Amino acid sequence: MLEKDFDPENFGIYDGICETIVTTCKGWTPNAAPMGIIRRKDKLYLRLFKGSATYENVLAEKSLVANITHDPMLFALSTFTNLDDSAFEQTVYENNTIYPLKEAESWVAFECINTKITSEALVAELVPVHAHMNECRIKAPNRGFYAVIEACIHATRYQLTGEEKYLKLIKAYGEIVEKCGGDAEKDAFKKVYEFL
Amino acid sequence: MLEKDFDPENFGIYDGICETIVTTCKGWTPNAAPMGIIRRKDKLYLRLFKGSATYENVLAEKSLVANITHDPMLFALSTFTNLDDSAFEQTVYENNTIYPLKEAESWVAFECINTKITSEALVAELVPVHAHMNECRIKAPNRGFYAVIEACIHATRYQLTGEEKYLKLIKAYGEIVEKCGGDAEKDAFKKVYEFL
Repeated sequence: MLEKDFDPENFGIYDGICETIVTTCKGWTPNAAPMGIIRRKDKLYLRLFKGSATYENVLAEKSLVANITHDPMLFALSTFTNLDDSAFEQTVYENNTIYPLKEAESWVAFECINTKITSEALVAELVPVHAHMNECRIKAPNRGFYAVIEACIHATRYQLTGEEKYLKLIKAYGEIVEKCGGDAEKDAFKKVYEFL
Repeated sequence: MLEKDFDPENFGIYDGICETIVTTCKGWTPNAAPMGIIRRKDKLYLRLFKGSATYENVLAEKSLVANITHDPMLFALSTFTNLDDSAFEQTVYENNTIYPLKEAESWVAFECINTKITSEALVAELVPVHAHMNECRIKAPNRGFYAVIEACIHATRYQLTGEEKYLKLIKAYGEIVEKCGGDAEKDAFKKVYEFL
């Protein structure tokens, strides 16, 4: 399936910043990390800060897979640690080996082009080259799910800076998880706290 | 379709608080308002504060429809004003007339039983009696979408209390919408500001 044949929107990639779990690999080692895929009309981008495995892998391999999921535990785990190898599904297309997540609702594989590197980050343009739909699951918006994502973001900032204000924000999002989340969101939030 | 025949989960109602748009009617006048459907395992509840059209309609008719949608404009509009009549789709089942939203991804009609009324609110148990799936659309989580929902909640609190702190929170969520939202989220957030 090539770029001209499909619209990333059919696989869940809409305008704005899509919160996905990006999987990359270096040699035989797959890696997963939550990343925002930026879509502005028909252009897609990814901005990666230096120092992460995703940064190194994208620089080396010029490819990645954006996995769409609403599983809060996948966001919590992949924020702080790599996922177990069993979470990935080795997939080959046109002689390329990629590692989407088994539990993704859908995924889009991208080639990275026009990569620009600054002192802090890289920005790559993304060209969709392959995509797959596993299961379209309808789910009402849950504020607890979103609060887990926000908590993961603030936890990353806290780990980078040690600033107390991020702990306060995480605690506030914890209240939303407690009130609005189901068991999945509550378990994921506990996991965030374990890693802090 | 009766209770025993379907699981609300198949129509998007999961554990925790599901952010839905609840439609009710009094006579021939349908009404829409964002409401959280509470699910704890197999029990479903709704808590309604006195003074809203939804409260009056549920008290009178003992029924409601929970509409699942990820359209931020539907949340913004139905928070502050009733939707245009053309947004509803009159639907008859077993001699009952209900008014789900045309644009809902799915909806579940509930009968309200064991209604408990306190001085401030009512709490009803919800029994699913009918459901429909329009379209399962896969969409990556977007922080801007959730920020619109949070802004609507704080806007309601602001209108009730006039407290400045809610305006500050709305402004903070506006920054997330600006950064992460697509056009749909940005337009919806503008609408929130228009109503304030």
